[in-house]
Amino acid sequence: MAHISLPEGLPGIVGPMHQYPETEVPLNALAQALLRGPSSLTPAERELIATYVSSQNDCWFCMSTHRSATQHLLKSEGQSPAIVDLVRQNVETAPVSEKMRALLVIAGKVQQGGRRVTEADVAKAREEGADDKAIHDTVLIAATFCMFNRYVDGLATWAPEDESAFEASGARLATQGYTNSIPR
Amino acid sequence: MAHISLPEGLPGIVGPMHQYPETEVPLNALAQALLRGPSSLTPAERELIATYVSSQNDCWFCMSTHRSATQHLLKSEGQSPAIVDLVRQNVETAPVSEKMRALLVIAGKVQQGGRRVTEADVAKAREEGADDKAIHDTVLIAATFCMFNRYVDGLATWAPEDESAFEASGARLATQGYTNSIPR
Repeated sequence: MAHISLPEGLPGIVGPMHQYPETEVPLNALAQALLRGPSSLTPAERELIATYVSSQNDCWFCMSTHRSATQHLLKSEGQSPAIVDLVRQNVETAPVSEKMRALLVIAGKVQQGGRRVTEADVAKAREEGADDKAIHDTVLIAATFCMFNRYVDGLATWAPEDESAFEASGARLATQGYTNSIPR
Repeated sequence: MAHISLPEGLPGIVGPMHQYPETEVPLNALAQALLRGPSSLTPAERELIATYVSSQNDCWFCMSTHRSATQHLLKSEGQSPAIVDLVRQNVETAPVSEKMRALLVIAGKVQQGGRRVTEADVAKAREEGADDKAIHDTVLIAATFCMFNRYVDGLATWAPEDESAFEASGARLATQGYTNSIPR
């Protein structure tokens, strides 16, 4: 049971977002700007970072939701949806570009704490083609999911156990983004 | 030197917020709703949670800024500004209400990871008078500062070393909030 009273049947962050619209509006606006707005990273690349950080934080709801969104976006960008689970298993060996690998390493450091990111980590990402915006977005996406993951699990929100339950929400986030994500 | 190119002389989060207004707008809207909007916690209580989490995350810029804002708000609420440093030193012995102590314990757990918050932590806060909104806001403030702290330190932003340099921004946040915090 969640730590506070929330509407029945709304999984993960959807419950507290529905209950507290005053914070839902800026939270969704942040997700939309960061994951779908202009960037040198594709939406699939940005959702992959979000999924990886949620996986490192062991947040089942966020990991499953953004895993599904990433899979849909990878397919729409002509890539294999299997990439997301290979990244979750091992960033070093996953079939991603060297730029993405360097950015995922930075995201993993941010997940542990902002001060863990080194000049060498950033230099490596630049060598592989990452620009300022890619580095900025990687750091802020990782930081933002450290927030979302804690919001979801710090309130002990409910989520379905079956991965297939996240299929519909992942498809919706892939196509519609975060501008209209709370049912009312 | 920061990991990305940022405007000269703007400390901490102000640099990346100025450089990337597309994310600055929802970030400031979130801070305003969460720290100044309607709540069963006072602005000083909410800034105290923000300062404590920033201190636990060892984020000098955020800790110093929100420490100053908390001191100003405590004074305006008729309390001693010394409370904030006593909380940073030891939550168990600091001169705060038992409700605030229980909420600070929850915030400290969220800082470590959302799953650390127990039913007993929440039951204790309720016994001491915390309602759903106070528990919600405590969890989301702690989660949000895990984001802000990582954004600031993950980009290796510059900040003044002297605590007195944060006096003016703390006073401005105490009186004006987060609606107009980026100089342009």
